[in-house]
Amino acid sequence: MMVSDGFGPASQTYGRSFYQYRGKFPEDKLTSLDKILVGTSRTRSSDSLVSDSAAGATAFSCAMKTYNGAIGVDPTGNPCGTILEAAKDLGMLTGFVVTSRVTHATPASFSAHVIHRDMEADIAAQQIGNYSLTRQLDLMLGGGRCFFLPNTTQGSCRTDDRDLIKEAQELYGWKTYVENKSDWEALLADYKSEQPLPLMGLFNMDHMNYEIDRINQEEVQEPSLLDMTKAALKLLDSQSATNQGFFLMIEGSRIDMGAHNNDPVAHAHEILAYHQTVEFVQKYVADHLDTMLISTSDHETGGFTLGYQEDPDTYPDYLWKPEVIDRAKASTEMLASQLQAYNTQAGKTPTQKEREQFVKTQILDQGLGITDPTPEEIAYLANKDVDYLKALPFMGHAISRRAGLGWTTLGHTGVDVNLYAGGDGISKLSGNVENTKIGEVMSDYLKVDLSYITRKLQKTANEWFKPKEKQFTTRLTRHQQSGN
Amino acid sequence: MMVSDGFGPASQTYGRSFYQYRGKFPEDKLTSLDKILVGTSRTRSSDSLVSDSAAGATAFSCAMKTYNGAIGVDPTGNPCGTILEAAKDLGMLTGFVVTSRVTHATPASFSAHVIHRDMEADIAAQQIGNYSLTRQLDLMLGGGRCFFLPNTTQGSCRTDDRDLIKEAQELYGWKTYVENKSDWEALLADYKSEQPLPLMGLFNMDHMNYEIDRINQEEVQEPSLLDMTKAALKLLDSQSATNQGFFLMIEGSRIDMGAHNNDPVAHAHEILAYHQTVEFVQKYVADHLDTMLISTSDHETGGFTLGYQEDPDTYPDYLWKPEVIDRAKASTEMLASQLQAYNTQAGKTPTQKEREQFVKTQILDQGLGITDPTPEEIAYLANKDVDYLKALPFMGHAISRRAGLGWTTLGHTGVDVNLYAGGDGISKLSGNVENTKIGEVMSDYLKVDLSYITRKLQKTANEWFKPKEKQFTTRLTRHQQSGN
Repeated sequence: MMVSDGFGPASQTYGRSFYQYRGKFPEDKLTSLDKILVGTSRTRSSDSLVSDSAAGATAFSCAMKTYNGAIGVDPTGNPCGTILEAAKDLGMLTGFVVTSRVTHATPASFSAHVIHRDMEADIAAQQIGNYSLTRQLDLMLGGGRCFFLPNTTQGSCRTDDRDLIKEAQELYGWKTYVENKSDWEALLADYKSEQPLPLMGLFNMDHMNYEIDRINQEEVQEPSLLDMTKAALKLLDSQSATNQGFFLMIEGSRIDMGAHNNDPVAHAHEILAYHQTVEFVQKYVADHLDTMLISTSDHETGGFTLGYQEDPDTYPDYLWKPEVIDRAKASTEMLASQLQAYNTQAGKTPTQKEREQFVKTQILDQGLGITDPTPEEIAYLANKDVDYLKALPFMGHAISRRAGLGWTTLGHTGVDVNLYAGGDGISKLSGNVENTKIGEVMSDYLKVDLSYITRKLQKTANEWFKPKEKQFTTRLTRHQQSGN
Repeated sequence: MMVSDGFGPASQTYGRSFYQYRGKFPEDKLTSLDKILVGTSRTRSSDSLVSDSAAGATAFSCAMKTYNGAIGVDPTGNPCGTILEAAKDLGMLTGFVVTSRVTHATPASFSAHVIHRDMEADIAAQQIGNYSLTRQLDLMLGGGRCFFLPNTTQGSCRTDDRDLIKEAQELYGWKTYVENKSDWEALLADYKSEQPLPLMGLFNMDHMNYEIDRINQEEVQEPSLLDMTKAALKLLDSQSATNQGFFLMIEGSRIDMGAHNNDPVAHAHEILAYHQTVEFVQKYVADHLDTMLISTSDHETGGFTLGYQEDPDTYPDYLWKPEVIDRAKASTEMLASQLQAYNTQAGKTPTQKEREQFVKTQILDQGLGITDPTPEEIAYLANKDVDYLKALPFMGHAISRRAGLGWTTLGHTGVDVNLYAGGDGISKLSGNVENTKIGEVMSDYLKVDLSYITRKLQKTANEWFKPKEKQFTTRLTRHQQSGN
């Protein structure tokens, strides 16, 4: 199961065209996804035409519509059995690979049950095995270390002093833990002498970096989505030797976040990284009988379009300029952070002129590839009180306008998303389907009864589930909370 | 062949949700289109990722990519044989039903060959039979009478004094001509006693009215898209009794125009009318062996999305309010015309206060169903110099904002569009295809060779085709020209 979070129909057209431009391919060169389109998915949640990622992923994992914010719980807020738990119950190996925090909505909805997505401290505890089903995961790769570290550790997102990495190893049988690229590479070089599952890899305190920053920023040392996916398939395939098979969820998590920031550069490179990963998984599926690949999105993000008209007095030019996107070398998140760091550096207060020069050179020219900034653009970003959260879409719109791209929101939209599938058992996944159908088809394929898992969860719920906990605390900043 | 002009993926999600709201249907009630989704179509033209309707329709009719503005001509500007001409060559009956001017880009690209879409006077002449293949159409229903009337007639769009309606009947064998609803209804009541083909129905000087205005404005007396389609199928079916069959192109032409104006009300009702028409045609196809139905769009229009965030400081609400759209009773085009008429009425100059009252009551409340106008909205529209072309999107955005809908352009965008098909011969139309594939599949189904028609056209081109005519005159206003 592959999830391209926040990836609507326009994002695929955009990704294809950018792929063709960068590769100097002809205009009929297709991406991995184009070759396996089978239909579209209706994404509404139980309480809105516009879904969030929690309800969207729970539709896949529990085959059930639920409310926005719900993580593996039904519309009344009670736990629902997930396809991952059902696969585990069959004796399969299970895992997920994501680029967000592992506690974020999509992976959480397959591996935890809480009434609101922001309860990431509880999600982390369940993911290591601290709930009635005990450990359900054999592999968990992504970011989000901050929810696994005690509040005594700098950068922790927990309000308690639990050390979940220690608990995971001591209480729930996690054999291997890695958190940096060199240990990760050593592990992979060595894995044949001693298999590392269950394996937890948390490569960033927060989300992992955007692909564009992973490539271009020297200080970022993280594996890519493709690297993690290759390793996950290799490990799960080789260790499920008793013919029990495995269930793996792979998410291009930050496709969505680039769109939330209306950042077409981060968005484009996340899409390309996802395409590459799909291509690899497709080959794996083609080479292995009895495997199934589904790829879809939980919802669209950004109201993103390939067509923008600034001045309603002119007739629109039907142009889009991929070269504008290709010139950019960093995400707007990275650049806004650099700007903030520059403005607040210890022991030095940059002058207005210095700030303008920094914005013009470092942010716009070298960062976004914008060589024709307007005085207004420089003035806005060089304002010493520039708001980080406003600077993000401001930069995103500056480059989108030049490329011919439009956005209508910093949130999600309700448009149906594309549905892709390959391998066995996909004949029922064609045409326009409800997103819950994806969970149903997976259950049918594995011949599992999710309601059996649901009953097991609900019978023990009083021991571990917080049904009435409407208040919860988080150390996430506004920017990190929800939505993405 | 059915064309939903300017109808992207978001428009279908929107149309479905509005259909469910109006019919008080459950959220899993599907529209006619949803049941026959087979894939998506890539819409780029030969010179832009963002196509116009001329290049888009020529991709269907000639199975060939061409430049924006090209009507039945290849990228070098030479005529290409169309599927309609090829069907005629087989001895089939042919026709089209549209709600735009019949000379507009989509119907023109099936039935004429000119180097630019604005050459509508030449298109009209070819459509009646004034070119080397002579009359190719047996049925032509829509608007656009102004291009068939001599420049001596009030409202004519021609610069010459040709009366094409007279020529059609006297020179090219058109048997029946109707231009108003009562004659049309009399004709249909009577058709069994004397069959009326070849039949030309031109029900408006310009485009036919939007469905929302056809329903709500007493003075509009026109058949609906469904009415015309029912009659066309009945006539073509009953008259092609020699088992030669027929080719019919049906277009929901003004779905696109509602989107160009960023008018969600007109857009919604055009979509509903199209859905109804598809449902009828689907039933016809299901009841008749050896028939094929394809429905797709030439391109998306408006950068339309189901999600809008006005204030970047707030986290977006994931809401859409169909009741806002349902309250509106007129298109913004109708309302902008009424406003213009009010401001320029003979013998009376309304005062500022009268204009404000008119805007508040007639335009916003009774027209758009907006009961909470802001002072800025009233002031903008009550300005005595309000620009008609600016008032259109201004009104559209006022209602879109309240409904939770967004737009990024008054033009087209490049997103892939949905592809629907039913009946025989559609097995090759699945997945993500180039728009030219639609023309190829129709040609394969009819077992025709379009290049044979192309050769016939090009051999005689010096007699009728204007290859080097780069200058042409038109009496269309800026608003009527191109783009739509």
